[in-house]
Amino acid sequence: MIKKILIVGGVAGGATTAARLRRLDEESTIILFERGEHISFANCGLPYYIGETIKDRNKLMVQTVEGMSKKFNLDIRNLSEVTKVNREQKTITVTNLATNEVYEESYDVLVLSPGAKPIVPPIPGLDEANNIFTLRNIPDTDRIKGYVDEQKPKEAVVVGGGFIGLEMAENLVDRGVRVTLVEMANQVMAPLDYEMAAIVHQHLKEKGVNLILEDGVSAFEDEGRVVTLSSGTKVETDMTILSIGVKPENSLAADAGLAIGERGGIIVNDYLQTDDPSIFALGDAIEVRDYINQKPAMIPLAGPANRQGRIVANNIYGRNEAYKGTLGTGIAKVFDLTVATTGNNEKVLEHQGVDYEVVHVHPASHAGYYPGAAPIALKLVFNRDGKILGAQAVGKDGVDKRMDVIATAIKGELSVFDLTELELSYAPPFSSAKDPVNMAGYVAANMIDEGIKTAQWHEIDQIVKDGGLLVDVRDPHERENGFIQGSINIPLGDLRDRLGELPTDQPIYVSCQVGLRGYLATRILNGHGFDGVNVDGGWKTYSVAKEN
Amino acid sequence: MIKKILIVGGVAGGATTAARLRRLDEESTIILFERGEHISFANCGLPYYIGETIKDRNKLMVQTVEGMSKKFNLDIRNLSEVTKVNREQKTITVTNLATNEVYEESYDVLVLSPGAKPIVPPIPGLDEANNIFTLRNIPDTDRIKGYVDEQKPKEAVVVGGGFIGLEMAENLVDRGVRVTLVEMANQVMAPLDYEMAAIVHQHLKEKGVNLILEDGVSAFEDEGRVVTLSSGTKVETDMTILSIGVKPENSLAADAGLAIGERGGIIVNDYLQTDDPSIFALGDAIEVRDYINQKPAMIPLAGPANRQGRIVANNIYGRNEAYKGTLGTGIAKVFDLTVATTGNNEKVLEHQGVDYEVVHVHPASHAGYYPGAAPIALKLVFNRDGKILGAQAVGKDGVDKRMDVIATAIKGELSVFDLTELELSYAPPFSSAKDPVNMAGYVAANMIDEGIKTAQWHEIDQIVKDGGLLVDVRDPHERENGFIQGSINIPLGDLRDRLGELPTDQPIYVSCQVGLRGYLATRILNGHGFDGVNVDGGWKTYSVAKEN
Repeated sequence: MIKKILIVGGVAGGATTAARLRRLDEESTIILFERGEHISFANCGLPYYIGETIKDRNKLMVQTVEGMSKKFNLDIRNLSEVTKVNREQKTITVTNLATNEVYEESYDVLVLSPGAKPIVPPIPGLDEANNIFTLRNIPDTDRIKGYVDEQKPKEAVVVGGGFIGLEMAENLVDRGVRVTLVEMANQVMAPLDYEMAAIVHQHLKEKGVNLILEDGVSAFEDEGRVVTLSSGTKVETDMTILSIGVKPENSLAADAGLAIGERGGIIVNDYLQTDDPSIFALGDAIEVRDYINQKPAMIPLAGPANRQGRIVANNIYGRNEAYKGTLGTGIAKVFDLTVATTGNNEKVLEHQGVDYEVVHVHPASHAGYYPGAAPIALKLVFNRDGKILGAQAVGKDGVDKRMDVIATAIKGELSVFDLTELELSYAPPFSSAKDPVNMAGYVAANMIDEGIKTAQWHEIDQIVKDGGLLVDVRDPHERENGFIQGSINIPLGDLRDRLGELPTDQPIYVSCQVGLRGYLATRILNGHGFDGVNVDGGWKTYSVAKEN
Repeated sequence: MIKKILIVGGVAGGATTAARLRRLDEESTIILFERGEHISFANCGLPYYIGETIKDRNKLMVQTVEGMSKKFNLDIRNLSEVTKVNREQKTITVTNLATNEVYEESYDVLVLSPGAKPIVPPIPGLDEANNIFTLRNIPDTDRIKGYVDEQKPKEAVVVGGGFIGLEMAENLVDRGVRVTLVEMANQVMAPLDYEMAAIVHQHLKEKGVNLILEDGVSAFEDEGRVVTLSSGTKVETDMTILSIGVKPENSLAADAGLAIGERGGIIVNDYLQTDDPSIFALGDAIEVRDYINQKPAMIPLAGPANRQGRIVANNIYGRNEAYKGTLGTGIAKVFDLTVATTGNNEKVLEHQGVDYEVVHVHPASHAGYYPGAAPIALKLVFNRDGKILGAQAVGKDGVDKRMDVIATAIKGELSVFDLTELELSYAPPFSSAKDPVNMAGYVAANMIDEGIKTAQWHEIDQIVKDGGLLVDVRDPHERENGFIQGSINIPLGDLRDRLGELPTDQPIYVSCQVGLRGYLATRILNGHGFDGVNVDGGWKTYSVAKEN
């Protein structure tokens, strides 16, 4: 019988583990150590409290120490830093941060859920400034919000265009601050591929964000009032948020001699056990297995941390439940856009050397004749067997739903062919008779089943330059808002009558607005012995990627 | 080679078949016959045009005869009624409704997609009234909207509380009409079970709808100005919508000697072929196989009709693609509520004699600390092996997403255990770290894995009456808004200290607000040797079912 379980870290994963442990056994001693004051706070809500979308600070406290202690009969010790794991003695060393008392506590089982901390590079001038912030917890939040409330900054620099960076950019703009977003890569939101991120770039600029890509911070000057970038550009600012990324809190585990992965994550087996069978680990601090490509990965997300907490508790009580890896479904609100991804993107698959295909579709979030429909840019990544490898979506409405459906389809090992058969809820306010997910499935299935050839947005310029024939099958008035240079125009409705104008000895690339008419044109061409190639995603995918 | 294909019916299924046929073969002759003026109109949008949410009548025309003819090289003959199929000669007899010309047209393959028509019982007084309407097509819509526009009715009776009835009720209320909704059953929306429909009943009443259940129309009097119900109640009205249900248009098939099912649907094989191999049929007119219970069913929905259209076209060209049955995912906007269902409900499973379990959860649509979260009443129906049999959800936000996820899970043969592992997109504006679908999965899995016993809302009164002990574990102030009669109150936080008050020789039924604290209390009780039974769905499920 397990008598005494210690848990290090009281936010998502640790708190879930504690609650689940108690549900499994009323008798054990469960002690939860948290370095900070607060346990189980709403870490994903912090930017929105700064932006005052969440007005009441108390709402950030999901569980209180007192409430949770009573409900689950736990010994919760906040402001208590665990500084050492003494594996031989099966004890930990704890510092009470309120009293500076140092003591040891013994365990039968130890659970490590220390989380991840913001990366702060040693940038010159960092230490001389008091207006540079990172965001991880409630005290960080109070500092940032206090600064905004009191100093009323006019300008801010956000360094890093990931989830937290974009959420902070939006929330600072909501507070009337003009934001410069600096990102080292050529795009924000790494889980997106470039052409999908381009939609976000366009939107950020529309919202007045000064977006600087492919640049980094080389120094802070004038007590943080000037940010000097690697390019030499200097940006004047009243405050800076560093949201470059996070790294696992691994020092406790490393000092105790537990195995640590290349990316710094604590290594665990399928049962979330470290190489010491009495010590489990979970959450943002561990290395997980990527569900799609089965390689080690660091994927810091709240959902998986909660799931892992339950599994750790179950396994402590001998249930032998395996954690099957992390798919990495992520989502962010970026001003009026929703950006969501699941599984692997092109960049990851290229890096892994995996063959893949992609399709881009631009369906409406619901029936176009019902008010409020907005286009969704949906990208599906799959292989020639029809296996779904990942998806990305950007739009103003209904994006979360489609990503969740695809994430569920991946879990159910459904293929792109199966996506066409999904029976999704349809009434005009919610979807179309063919849902965007069905549509993406059809387009992907057509490539495999019918041998529909496609060209990608990044290939077109070279194709035209090399003398390829590109036919824009939109109506002439649609070209007034732009068209791919070098294309000729034959509207779809006229195509059958004008086939005589086209050559049979070379591919005929076909583009339209979103790729649908291009597909129909490709079928017509192929049906008459031509070699049609559809420009995937049409003008919409091409133009936003080229212009942003 | 197939040379000539005739299609009867030009709305969802027929139009899809025609478009797909052309994509598969540029050479064939494809003739589409439609009795009405319009093809491929937005039939699901009709109520919203009457209610003026959709303002432009042109938006109802998804495809025009001219546009679709050109795009797909089709011979579309609207206002053309097919009156007879001459199977021996492989011809059909057609009446041109504009000229009254009658002619025959030969076919290699015939596709029947005639749809379903509103049921109109022979109620006395029906023929003497000019203010009684059914809604199926554009002319019906014009008649109803014209009547509302010109006659400015103050009162309307809607007969039948299905999808169309509820949508018409809402849209008439939007036009300032006071609506009485009359439904023969004890609930609206047959795909819901009673306690879920009760939430809709409550909302309809809040919106001022005069809801009359378990009553039908026995006569119309005074030229439709008085509706007499079976109970004897008389309702004065300015207009009546009959939305009792639909029946398949089977006369063409029946007259041709094709097999017709018990429910009136044209019988087809897995390849959507009738018992004449040259004749295919699809859409609302055919009998399908229920995806869950594998029994014959009539499920008139647009999504399946579209899917069937593609399959029929594929099979005409020899692809041998099977239609795998209809899951019946349905959704309706009912004023501020969204109501969605998938698979089988309790009523269907009871009727089929299938064993099942249910759970009710009431999670928030997204993180409670982020503004705009609204509770979702979510019911999951499953069996003891964990197989998902169906789901129902009612709420103001995020209902469609959860139903689509569960529908996808069913398609992927995921179990309730798998639902707990779904990685769904989480950020505070969209969901919680444990999504409502994860939650429902956990509650169901707990029943199976941990032997958590539950009692259903409809069992409680009898249990208390028979002397059962019911403990309400909410805080005392929560009981001020109501509690189950006969329950005693021990707040969850006090339960461990007050175990001595409880008997060990009888089940202890536990209720809370939504079922979560009841589950925790059940675990505590079981952990101390008591026999805890959780009241599934808590006060929320119980009270709305009892009061509406």
